[in-house]
Amino acid sequence: MVPHLVTALTGPINELEQRILDSMPAIERWFRLEWMEHTPPFYASVDIRNAGFKLAPVDTNLFPGGWNHLTDEMLPLAVQAAMAAIEKICPEARNLLIVPENQARGTSYMANIAQLVRIFNMAGLHVRVGSIDPDVKKATPVALPHGDKVVLEPAQRTRHRLGLKHFEPCTILLNNDLSAGAPGILEELYEQYLLPPLHAGWSVRRKSRHFQCYEEVAKRFGKMLGIDPWLINPLFTRAPGVDFQADAGLEGLRSAVDATLTKVRRKYKEYGINEKAFALVKADNGTSGMGIMTVRDVRELDNLSRKARAAMATLKGGQGVHDVIVQEGVLTQERVHEAVAEPVVYTMDRYVVGGFYRMHAERGSDENLNAPGASFVPLAFEHSTRLPQPGARPGASAPNRFYMYGVIARLATVAASYELEATDPEAEVYD
Amino acid sequence: MVPHLVTALTGPINELEQRILDSMPAIERWFRLEWMEHTPPFYASVDIRNAGFKLAPVDTNLFPGGWNHLTDEMLPLAVQAAMAAIEKICPEARNLLIVPENQARGTSYMANIAQLVRIFNMAGLHVRVGSIDPDVKKATPVALPHGDKVVLEPAQRTRHRLGLKHFEPCTILLNNDLSAGAPGILEELYEQYLLPPLHAGWSVRRKSRHFQCYEEVAKRFGKMLGIDPWLINPLFTRAPGVDFQADAGLEGLRSAVDATLTKVRRKYKEYGINEKAFALVKADNGTSGMGIMTVRDVRELDNLSRKARAAMATLKGGQGVHDVIVQEGVLTQERVHEAVAEPVVYTMDRYVVGGFYRMHAERGSDENLNAPGASFVPLAFEHSTRLPQPGARPGASAPNRFYMYGVIARLATVAASYELEATDPEAEVYD
Repeated sequence: MVPHLVTALTGPINELEQRILDSMPAIERWFRLEWMEHTPPFYASVDIRNAGFKLAPVDTNLFPGGWNHLTDEMLPLAVQAAMAAIEKICPEARNLLIVPENQARGTSYMANIAQLVRIFNMAGLHVRVGSIDPDVKKATPVALPHGDKVVLEPAQRTRHRLGLKHFEPCTILLNNDLSAGAPGILEELYEQYLLPPLHAGWSVRRKSRHFQCYEEVAKRFGKMLGIDPWLINPLFTRAPGVDFQADAGLEGLRSAVDATLTKVRRKYKEYGINEKAFALVKADNGTSGMGIMTVRDVRELDNLSRKARAAMATLKGGQGVHDVIVQEGVLTQERVHEAVAEPVVYTMDRYVVGGFYRMHAERGSDENLNAPGASFVPLAFEHSTRLPQPGARPGASAPNRFYMYGVIARLATVAASYELEATDPEAEVYD
Repeated sequence: MVPHLVTALTGPINELEQRILDSMPAIERWFRLEWMEHTPPFYASVDIRNAGFKLAPVDTNLFPGGWNHLTDEMLPLAVQAAMAAIEKICPEARNLLIVPENQARGTSYMANIAQLVRIFNMAGLHVRVGSIDPDVKKATPVALPHGDKVVLEPAQRTRHRLGLKHFEPCTILLNNDLSAGAPGILEELYEQYLLPPLHAGWSVRRKSRHFQCYEEVAKRFGKMLGIDPWLINPLFTRAPGVDFQADAGLEGLRSAVDATLTKVRRKYKEYGINEKAFALVKADNGTSGMGIMTVRDVRELDNLSRKARAAMATLKGGQGVHDVIVQEGVLTQERVHEAVAEPVVYTMDRYVVGGFYRMHAERGSDENLNAPGASFVPLAFEHSTRLPQPGARPGASAPNRFYMYGVIARLATVAASYELEATDPEAEVYD
């Protein structure tokens, strides 16, 4: 099915789409040169918001779940990208161990793991799933719909290696975002490839660092394309030392919200956009759509309910929030069956391998959709039109729009690669 | 549409399919290790024959045409493989020049060129088509169905480079098999990447060298898999100095046919195969399905008609035949709508990117199908089943069969890489 696209939109986004399509060879070359200098994240999913007048990534997940929402049609691309990735990292690989989230045992998450097992098996590896959850003490089959199943086995640590009983992986694929910090069982595994690296986990990552890197990428890309980088970049301000429970740091947060909204309003005025500016307050170390709040006016911060404060104060795995970022809110104009929707694009190595629409019937176009109640519609296009169609009317071609989304998602992965270089504990420092 | 597969077949081929599926990780690793040591052909198409009891490549084309017969569904894989190939060879590439065959101007061949233009454009290059045919003196548009078109432009040679007016390619993609020898206009292009290299052309290539390399590959692969390499390898004998017009060298040809048929009959007996052995006499330097003759008995050589001799004596581009190979005939058990069919598998870099069935309603199961009157049916599977399905009953799963074909095709490309190393005029020789 082709998702409904807001083809009635005119103005900046269609010009941007046209500019991006016209510049396809220059854009692809730009990415090739970036990847000569930088290592792409092993895999990623990027949430994108299309406001009609601007288009921006709002979250870059380096331990993507949701692989089960990709269509079977997209799998061959994922398999081929996985083959390319393995070949580069460890061509002699035989065995791959996937480490899933500790707590998530639901059917949907496990279907995601089953899909990853399938992809890497097709790419030519023996794949097994090793849980680092201490509660998993023996091989535990999890039944999935359609007769599928995943067997969770307890990961075993020896002095230098992680594995399973009678299974020696040379590569370990983390699908666990390490919100609670890198556990000892994963540290000092110098004999195995650990992908993504530990410092990609949320105990080290900060949204502010990611979006700072993204801003740099967007500026350079915008310069190449001859566009205002704001059209693809969400503005943000960092507010350190915020404690919602103890009422600390809220003054700093207020001025960050105020500064962000002022900048956004100025941009709206410049482009003649008749929308109400809004911002999202996000935990700087937050994941899984937790610790996120929409603010339309700085005064809303004065009347936060106890419940809202509690929701902002604690993240997945019980992590506390100390710093926040105030990010320009980007409306989404995408709708699927009337529900507000946002595209999520999946990458593996340097390749876009698929995507879907996340939609939420009960949320507004200025709200976070990554929340309970969200559902998913595959971005599966008519077969004959899955690749860009030069010459199609701007805004009227789903594949052209998807190509544009893929470009934005890849810009976010370039930013992620800068970010991981900056935080790499083993990076060599040249003075 | 799923092509009709002879699922009633039992015995060796289904065992082989099962063995290949079960060994998928070992096989993929084997290929990864091969490609660490050897460079895959830039692109290739491999004709495969499935006799039910054995499966073998019978022709490996390093300048493949017929890209237009791949379905749109397969294009994203080809584009992704092209991106990987370009990135490895020349990441800073901007412009690609495709050099087509000189004489072929038919709609079908030009649709093939249009498809290649499309693939490399989507992969992020400016692509134009430069003919080295001296008859092409100015830009010549060739109209194609569906409003498509290809513009043939005269390639221009400067001292060190080939290009077009106002178009400086860094890479030149040959889709011209150089049957008549490498023309001066393509020689000594030291500043540009020429793909495939000149020595992949049919003035240098020999079928006997290819199948000798393939035999070596099949033996090593067979050893890894624990199978008789004959199950995937067509036997052959080379007969040098044959001149059909002058009646020279025919004695050598007779003994080569006799030797080949004897070996094949012995194998048939060993496996209890109740078929009549046959052989194909092929020009050692032949291409495009020309210079090929089926021989079921050595006595047939005594009564060759004048027409048959003439057909065997001359190849594409007026090249003469001097040496021939006598190759074990491999029956094809594949049928599409009653017509005899054989799969053709396309690769780019190390990846299988698609394929189709070549079928010929007027030819028998022991004849060459690459002849006027052939038609093509895409190997497009149901979307949900384009990847191997471990657990499916052997012989009953089209994707599993296609995976097996892809493995055999890749073995042929490994052989081609050995072959190109052996004939590389710039190879360093270690004593």
